Amino acid sequence: MSSTLGTLYTVTTFGESHCKGVGAIVDGCPPGLALVEADIQQQLSRRRPGQSDLSTPRQEADQVTIYSGTEFGRTLGTPIMLLVHNKDQRPHDYGEMSRIPRPSHADFTYQMKYGIRASSGGGRSSARETIGRVAAGAIAEKWLYETYGTEIVAWVSAVGDIEAPPADINTINRAQVDAQIVRCPDAATAARMEAQIKEVLEAKDSIGGILTCVCRKVPVGLGEPVFDKLEARLAQAMLSLPATKGFDIGSGFAGTRMRGSEHNDPFVQKESGLGTRTNHSGGVQGGISNGEPIIFRVAFKPVATIGMAQETVDFDGEAVTLAAKGRHDPCVVARAVPIVESMAALVLIDLALQQRSRQPCSP
Amino acid sequence: MSSTLGTLYTVTTFGESHCKGVGAIVDGCPPGLALVEADIQQQLSRRRPGQSDLSTPRQEADQVTIYSGTEFGRTLGTPIMLLVHNKDQRPHDYGEMSRIPRPSHADFTYQMKYGIRASSGGGRSSARETIGRVAAGAIAEKWLYETYGTEIVAWVSAVGDIEAPPADINTINRAQVDAQIVRCPDAATAARMEAQIKEVLEAKDSIGGILTCVCRKVPVGLGEPVFDKLEARLAQAMLSLPATKGFDIGSGFAGTRMRGSEHNDPFVQKESGLGTRTNHSGGVQGGISNGEPIIFRVAFKPVATIGMAQETVDFDGEAVTLAAKGRHDPCVVARAVPIVESMAALVLIDLALQQRSRQPCSP
Amino acid sequence: MSSTLGTLYTVTTFGESHCKGVGAIVDGCPPGLALVEADIQQQLSRRRPGQSDLSTPRQEADQVTIYSGTEFGRTLGTPIMLLVHNKDQRPHDYGEMSRIPRPSHADFTYQMKYGIRASSGGGRSSARETIGRVAAGAIAEKWLYETYGTEIVAWVSAVGDIEAPPADINTINRAQVDAQIVRCPDAATAARMEAQIKEVLEAKDSIGGILTCVCRKVPVGLGEPVFDKLEARLAQAMLSLPATKGFDIGSGFAGTRMRGSEHNDPFVQKESGLGTRTNHSGGVQGGISNGEPIIFRVAFKPVATIGMAQETVDFDGEAVTLAAKGRHDPCVVARAVPIVESMAALVLIDLALQQRSRQPCSP
Amino acid sequence: MSSTLGTLYTVTTFGESHCKGVGAIVDGCPPGLALVEADIQQQLSRRRPGQSDLSTPRQEADQVTIYSGTEFGRTLGTPIMLLVHNKDQRPHDYGEMSRIPRPSHADFTYQMKYGIRASSGGGRSSARETIGRVAAGAIAEKWLYETYGTEIVAWVSAVGDIEAPPADINTINRAQVDAQIVRCPDAATAARMEAQIKEVLEAKDSIGGILTCVCRKVPVGLGEPVFDKLEARLAQAMLSLPATKGFDIGSGFAGTRMRGSEHNDPFVQKESGLGTRTNHSGGVQGGISNGEPIIFRVAFKPVATIGMAQETVDFDGEAVTLAAKGRHDPCVVARAVPIVESMAALVLIDLALQQRSRQPCSP
Repeated sequence: MSSTLGTLYTVTTFGESHCKGVGAIVDGCPPGLALVEADIQQQLSRRRPGQSDLSTPRQEADQVTIYSGTEFGRTLGTPIMLLVHNKDQRPHDYGEMSRIPRPSHADFTYQMKYGIRASSGGGRSSARETIGRVAAGAIAEKWLYETYGTEIVAWVSAVGDIEAPPADINTINRAQVDAQIVRCPDAATAARMEAQIKEVLEAKDSIGGILTCVCRKVPVGLGEPVFDKLEARLAQAMLSLPATKGFDIGSGFAGTRMRGSEHNDPFVQKESGLGTRTNHSGGVQGGISNGEPIIFRVAFKPVATIGMAQETVDFDGEAVTLAAKGRHDPCVVARAVPIVESMAALVLIDLALQQRSRQPCSP
Repeated sequence: MSSTLGTLYTVTTFGESHCKGVGAIVDGCPPGLALVEADIQQQLSRRRPGQSDLSTPRQEADQVTIYSGTEFGRTLGTPIMLLVHNKDQRPHDYGEMSRIPRPSHADFTYQMKYGIRASSGGGRSSARETIGRVAAGAIAEKWLYETYGTEIVAWVSAVGDIEAPPADINTINRAQVDAQIVRCPDAATAARMEAQIKEVLEAKDSIGGILTCVCRKVPVGLGEPVFDKLEARLAQAMLSLPATKGFDIGSGFAGTRMRGSEHNDPFVQKESGLGTRTNHSGGVQGGISNGEPIIFRVAFKPVATIGMAQETVDFDGEAVTLAAKGRHDPCVVARAVPIVESMAALVLIDLALQQRSRQPCSP
Repeated sequence: MSSTLGTLYTVTTFGESHCKGVGAIVDGCPPGLALVEADIQQQLSRRRPGQSDLSTPRQEADQVTIYSGTEFGRTLGTPIMLLVHNKDQRPHDYGEMSRIPRPSHADFTYQMKYGIRASSGGGRSSARETIGRVAAGAIAEKWLYETYGTEIVAWVSAVGDIEAPPADINTINRAQVDAQIVRCPDAATAARMEAQIKEVLEAKDSIGGILTCVCRKVPVGLGEPVFDKLEARLAQAMLSLPATKGFDIGSGFAGTRMRGSEHNDPFVQKESGLGTRTNHSGGVQGGISNGEPIIFRVAFKPVATIGMAQETVDFDGEAVTLAAKGRHDPCVVARAVPIVESMAALVLIDLALQQRSRQPCSP
Repeated sequence: MSSTLGTLYTVTTFGESHCKGVGAIVDGCPPGLALVEADIQQQLSRRRPGQSDLSTPRQEADQVTIYSGTEFGRTLGTPIMLLVHNKDQRPHDYGEMSRIPRPSHADFTYQMKYGIRASSGGGRSSARETIGRVAAGAIAEKWLYETYGTEIVAWVSAVGDIEAPPADINTINRAQVDAQIVRCPDAATAARMEAQIKEVLEAKDSIGGILTCVCRKVPVGLGEPVFDKLEARLAQAMLSLPATKGFDIGSGFAGTRMRGSEHNDPFVQKESGLGTRTNHSGGVQGGISNGEPIIFRVAFKPVATIGMAQETVDFDGEAVTLAAKGRHDPCVVARAVPIVESMAALVLIDLALQQRSRQPCSP
């Protein structure tokens, strides 16, 4: 079930870039949660294109409608269908490119896999597919916050070579992140990133970057050994996003250079119980949350669509020169912020519900 | 179903470090595959402890028995139960440590999650759990090789600060890898790694490292958009392994520093059809294999069990000093080589079978 | 994932009786299938209310829109979202009954399970939920017919005490079934059934009945031992329908009275290979289709909503007298015909795709 | 995953009739349950062959060993591997019959589906496969009883034409059932059934029958609309058993003859809350348990293996006469009693755990 994620809180997304609509069905949302469209819209609006002049000018309001699963502003425990109409329905538009698989796009692989592919945009590989995820994730976030006080905050920690200084993972919040167009909370770094992206945009090129995400107040005990370890599910969730090339958690790749004596997180007594002095583990030990902040990074490659001419071949192997028309996002990381947060929320709620089934309640 | 991986080729592992046995059930293996225990044993033997003086001295032959699913050396298409008896069954041995959760181990999180935990060793979080995976992966590898000629080779590309020069991913093979105790195919680097690990061992410390893995001759079209993209499934598989902290594919984290114009992989005509000139994508575009080698890296943290004294607290929050007795692996990466290969094989076979369901055959 | 059915061809339905819309996402439909809304509409129209004066007068056109997953009349292999708007959206209508759980309805159990329930109609337990199933099943049927020539025909074989004579399962078709309002192909029996239903309707009562369904030209080999045996999957599918109380296949309950010597189906040579002389097995042996017609029955209880006064208690345990207002279906079996056919199609396509993954194709 | 059942309490069975062993992995069993092999053995012993002279003389002690998932007599919350060695390993024994598919057996369909099949016995279609289910079900039963007081009792309610009078579903227990060799609690009927089976046995024939099963003290709220309704999951579970041809619940097929006014179960105030005066629903409304006893029936066809000569054809279509050698069970229903109980337990525990995830607990 490739378009469905989760065991108890399941999300099934639908929609191509230029079909009638995109969205998702959320099944397994706990009943009784207060939920109206505005709860979902705020994250969708953070995700939508056209928020700044650094982004694609595609105009989509991305207004979500809840078709089922709620009544009088409360969830019923039944499937919630979330629909966003595509304003921009143009199945013919990219027609001239139908014979040329765009380099590092999914045109070639979709064609080979399915023997057919959407004629325009990226079809299902388009970033528009993430609308359903963000909508579903917004609901998950709300439940996690109301149930555990869980806070999930992602930000841009690198654009190309420009790295942000470490953020304070205990206090960083979305207002700080959104204060900068590029969603890097450090203003000085953000200014440099913005300049970098503009330079790339003018060069009709694109550039990659890294997102860092922290999840605070995650209850101890989430993660299902062995294949659904918390970090395994997060890794799958993040690498299922378009344009991602890497994931690491806690000390991550840098941790491979450390000794055990410095990497181990000794236990200390904290107010709420045992905690750890350091957090190289990134909030997860043995695949299970330990109550410390969960912190991970996601690597995004440079956008494949660029205005510069590219030498490639068409489906028949004939040499062609390709240059994208119109304007495109030169860097996706700012818009990816709510998407990464949503994916984290989807993983956490699903594992939280699984863990609840294990806890003794009165029948 | 936390101990089950896969949709059509499913693997369910069982076993703690010191129970009666460990292993797996493989369900969905295609019928008619030639299979005897020796086909599985070779990878198990590469995985087992005690292969060199750099490794734990725990003596386990790890002999596998096929209990079901084959007859006269052929698979029947039915569940294959694979069992390895634990020689070393000692449920009381670590008893004195039962009140002290070991730093960066899973003692604390298992106890909090389940309200109970295995009294000795790591229980289910032990590396012994991977025996079932390796056994199941060996079968998957055999089928992939016989069906597509797929070759999967992993090697140690970094230990601590020591990085190996890039290997030739088109030719590297297991004989080259196994020629070195540390399983880094570059002899000079391997010697330095070995020295490093010995130094760490003498210091009663541990150290991390990185594995690189290549999968060659993977057919075009594997990977199920959107949540079961090939890289998403690989990421989950790798991050489900003990001690892993990161995964990246193709250009990975380094790719975030590149421009689209240099990162994009232009198409070229190759003998077998369209291919790409470069392979920053790592063999995957839009979550689907494109026929180029799949190349990814997995980050392993330093082993948590160290002989050096550690200041920590017990379950009651009382300060204690902890020092592991006996000898332990100071670095797991060499033994992780067949494990990573096996996980890759498990992902590939499952996606291959899913793709086959899409292909028109005569009924 | 209670609202999702299937392993490779998955259907996730959504919608309550009086929310904005009902429908489904079909994921895993093979690419390249010719598909337009009219292909789906014909079965929805056979299902919709108000087709005769024996049925509920609720007026719903039940027009389906394909929101995603097709382009230029072909499936893309991506999720197909199917939406039918509810004309009749009235969340307050049944308000006065909110304190009275209707006998043999789902009001009580939904309230106890979820702590909340849809205020009107049956919510998710309403027959309107089956719209998504029928839409998804119509696509499945089309693929099965084009791929294997599979024909699925259900009909009303009993209403109350009135049983139809055995139909010719090799030739019976939908035109014959639809020729009678009650969808019993035997005209004389149909007339008696119709009279019976009218009598029940006038008495403000309801009555049950039995559907029989045959699936012809199902390829040999469908059904996944052991838990997804063909009959097991059919049984689940049918018992997941509202108002069903029983399922049997082949000789069924009557077969329990037979001796093995008469019940066994001896093999005979047929044109297309081995077949059986009799078909007490109902087209399935060992959980796998054998190429003979699959024949099964589904028992439907009398509709729970009746106009007659009923003595019951409210949620507080206070005695009340309840009588449904308005008009309701006195017997659901005629409208259940396309629903049963659709569920059969959903089971068959999913098992067919699984079996295809096992068949050797050229990569 | 055809050999895996369940969402949170998952059972994966393995083993053919004559391989090295049969059994199951149970994943998701709640931690902390007291569990030793004797808890499982009692149901396995009720299932094993050779309990009376009405049964097959195959001698198998069916001693179960717990290989993992428990320590010091408590479950750890990790996978429990349950293994029963096959004493009777004889892969060649039925060799002479390899060219003759036995009528109404699975020889033909397995051969066609997989292109290969176990050379002797029924392979995976053998009743020995149910050993894993019974072992897994015994654990489920224990947890259900300790958690909710749930009692599950099945009995033989019909053999051929001989039907038992209705049992008292509120009091019937296993001791009463086991007091009769044929496991029909009514002594007079049991005697007639026994005589009937002996007669059939002497005639080298076989006969079918019906089991009835009641589940008492099932908490309100189990069953996941819409596809995992309680009756849907029970139906799948029962029809996945060898030799079953039908399932009905509550009023079942007989209920189709009733009017709504007599079939509806009015609510009444009971000690523990609302209950129903009658129980035509069989303890389930809208797919969710309502707290009343769950009662269902399962139809078993006559055993396919008979000593009488049968005219059939071999795989080449050549006419042959077939007569089974040795002795076989002429009627499986008595031995099916613990199997049906186990399947019911597996369904109930899985739905109970899912429902628990929905209940508000302190994090």
